Amino acid sequence: MKQIFIHATIITMVEGQQPFSGALGIENDRITYVGPVPTAKELDAYDQVIDCQGKAILPGFVNTHGHAAMSLLRGYADDLPLKKWLEEKIWPLEAKFTSEQVRAGTALSVLEMIQSGTTCFLDMYDHMDQVGQVVTEAGIRARLCRGAIGFGSEELRQSKLNEAAQFAKDWHGAADGRITTMMAPHSPYTCSPEYIRQFIEKAAELGLPIHTHMSETAAEVQQNVDEYGVRPVEHLRRLGFFDLPSLVAHAVHLTDEEIDILAEYDVKVAHNPGSNLKLGSGIAPIPKMLKKGLRPALATDGAASNNNLDMLEEIQLAALIHKGVNQDPEAVPAYVALSMGTLYGAEALFLDKEIGSLEVGKKADFITIDLSGAHMCPLHDVVSHLVYSASRGDIQDVYVDGKAIMRNRECLTLDEEKIRYDAIKAFEAIQ
Amino acid sequence: MKQIFIHATIITMVEGQQPFSGALGIENDRITYVGPVPTAKELDAYDQVIDCQGKAILPGFVNTHGHAAMSLLRGYADDLPLKKWLEEKIWPLEAKFTSEQVRAGTALSVLEMIQSGTTCFLDMYDHMDQVGQVVTEAGIRARLCRGAIGFGSEELRQSKLNEAAQFAKDWHGAADGRITTMMAPHSPYTCSPEYIRQFIEKAAELGLPIHTHMSETAAEVQQNVDEYGVRPVEHLRRLGFFDLPSLVAHAVHLTDEEIDILAEYDVKVAHNPGSNLKLGSGIAPIPKMLKKGLRPALATDGAASNNNLDMLEEIQLAALIHKGVNQDPEAVPAYVALSMGTLYGAEALFLDKEIGSLEVGKKADFITIDLSGAHMCPLHDVVSHLVYSASRGDIQDVYVDGKAIMRNRECLTLDEEKIRYDAIKAFEAIQ
Repeated sequence: MKQIFIHATIITMVEGQQPFSGALGIENDRITYVGPVPTAKELDAYDQVIDCQGKAILPGFVNTHGHAAMSLLRGYADDLPLKKWLEEKIWPLEAKFTSEQVRAGTALSVLEMIQSGTTCFLDMYDHMDQVGQVVTEAGIRARLCRGAIGFGSEELRQSKLNEAAQFAKDWHGAADGRITTMMAPHSPYTCSPEYIRQFIEKAAELGLPIHTHMSETAAEVQQNVDEYGVRPVEHLRRLGFFDLPSLVAHAVHLTDEEIDILAEYDVKVAHNPGSNLKLGSGIAPIPKMLKKGLRPALATDGAASNNNLDMLEEIQLAALIHKGVNQDPEAVPAYVALSMGTLYGAEALFLDKEIGSLEVGKKADFITIDLSGAHMCPLHDVVSHLVYSASRGDIQDVYVDGKAIMRNRECLTLDEEKIRYDAIKAFEAIQ
Repeated sequence: MKQIFIHATIITMVEGQQPFSGALGIENDRITYVGPVPTAKELDAYDQVIDCQGKAILPGFVNTHGHAAMSLLRGYADDLPLKKWLEEKIWPLEAKFTSEQVRAGTALSVLEMIQSGTTCFLDMYDHMDQVGQVVTEAGIRARLCRGAIGFGSEELRQSKLNEAAQFAKDWHGAADGRITTMMAPHSPYTCSPEYIRQFIEKAAELGLPIHTHMSETAAEVQQNVDEYGVRPVEHLRRLGFFDLPSLVAHAVHLTDEEIDILAEYDVKVAHNPGSNLKLGSGIAPIPKMLKKGLRPALATDGAASNNNLDMLEEIQLAALIHKGVNQDPEAVPAYVALSMGTLYGAEALFLDKEIGSLEVGKKADFITIDLSGAHMCPLHDVVSHLVYSASRGDIQDVYVDGKAIMRNRECLTLDEEKIRYDAIKAFEAIQ
């Protein structure tokens, strides 16, 4: 089917292109036209012409790190340090998670992500078949990995590794290609060097990228130094982690030399400003990364430490906090923050050939945003308004692979009432 | 008229009171009941019973510092340092503002504030009669002051002072008491000590509180030291500013000794996290202020430096940024952040006998918030969800003096379309 969206403010996120009033044409799952509104005669070639007056069209947000099932624990324990929060509150409850909890929590998160304009997300968790099924039904795009914590017996570790590899093989390319996979040892502080090396080997064998948590807290960096004599970046470099296409989440505590290493190896970074602030982990040196040519992406982390999955909030935080902390109002300009939530996100998930900007030939993953609110008036600068003024309620429509999965704020693929009911039941079952 | 709102999650913001499922009763402009849902027979005594199942009821937000007319310049100039932003971009355009721009910009801001749950705001600007008229029509509550920059001739200065005093006299108690006033020299870096003293004397004579900008940037503190030999806090203390009920906006750059002085004089602080971050001014030492017993309030500042007037965002920023900067997840707990946006705000405007919490005898200024969204599920902790997960679109109804000024997200007192049209025209007229 050929569709065209006209009279919109088009924000392509292609570098150097200014927002313009025009049209976006698609055929089935691909973008076929980006430019001025065609003539009436040219419009006749489309099966459907959709008037988007008063709306912006931009690439959907790409959420590059999270644990969708953890939405069941949203607000369950707040305002605690990471170690205590994990060890005393989150992990004991998570240990009770079965496929039922993962399915219910993931469905809740995917619904929330669609409603806040996310078209692609990375998920690192357990019971990943459930996540794959929810993604298939929801019509969203995802990069999925079975995250493995290397505690417990050698047998348990090997079974997790095998499960992770099997999942990665089985689901890569599933859901008409909307699902791709990765390998993911949880972190250097929960996985031995040998175990991380096994994941690296398996990822190389499968031809997949690799993902992990890195340098989220100062304590964890110190622990790495105490145990292995080096900080996490050098630790992972020596293990060969960065020889593969690799994505690290957090990267809060970095020296200038570590930023150089990440830049040298073109390591992708998932910046989680909301989660890092809320857990008191610190503030990642994003302006320094940008100066070194890194293109950090954005992420929400799990809802238990955020406590929502709203990428517009992360974009706004990324634009604001580095200015304040560095007392530099030019630290992360609005356009860069929006890139971090879209194009840089696609790059971080190694999907930028397919998504992340509105260009002919790419997948038709995009959102529309209402520009008519009082808080968006006068419309001096649409990018500024999206970054500093907009909020989730302004997002109107969400398309993935050219299919509407939300229209006029109503999710078309998921049953909202049932999902909320199931989430509450699934939590009650483990209390 | 007697109305009662039942089956809501009531968050009174009275210290020590937990949220509970119950009812809020009002008679005309006052709260007459806060407690469990009354019996059917007791409900008969009310003219109207409103079912609020699935909603929270809490005091409306109090925005303690702003310049409403500046919404005309929202996004007009971004990502610049305060001095350059003011001197090269904002002040030249503001110089062209007439009563038409002030009226249009203020109406736009008041509409936006109502839509985002603010029931009371402080405004410091020029052409304040226009602001008073908009407030009267909108049905919102406000503390208003004519801000005076002490540049130019002595004659100009005196005319501003007289205008400020006349406005303060004429409008104090207007709009059925919804409008109260203050005196407001702009700042120590734009007003001579003598000029500030004149404002202090006039405020004392009128029995009104006094408001100013203070220590927003490091450069401005240094300028104070260079010109007067002391930092701004000591400067204002010596002038007698703190001998009156006084409110300072920003207070970003403070020494521990200065915090002690503010605490000693019970000076109220308007913390503007969004504006301070966006302009790269820095991050106010809120956790230290809280430890010293100060109760800092929240504010958006003008929309030109924010770029919206969304108090839920300020509450979320206040809860998040101090945790991250101080690497302390307990720095500003969620409940404290919500207090900063409600009760502490009422205190900062010296209106806490009338507003800021849901208590029998206080004014019926409150809002309802939808709790049914996916991003609010499961509802483990309603305060956590309001602070970390909610956004402006969740706010449903806004009441001031017991009258609905927004219902189901529709503003009942202002014509949204006309306001947006007038704002665009008013900006075009000064381009």
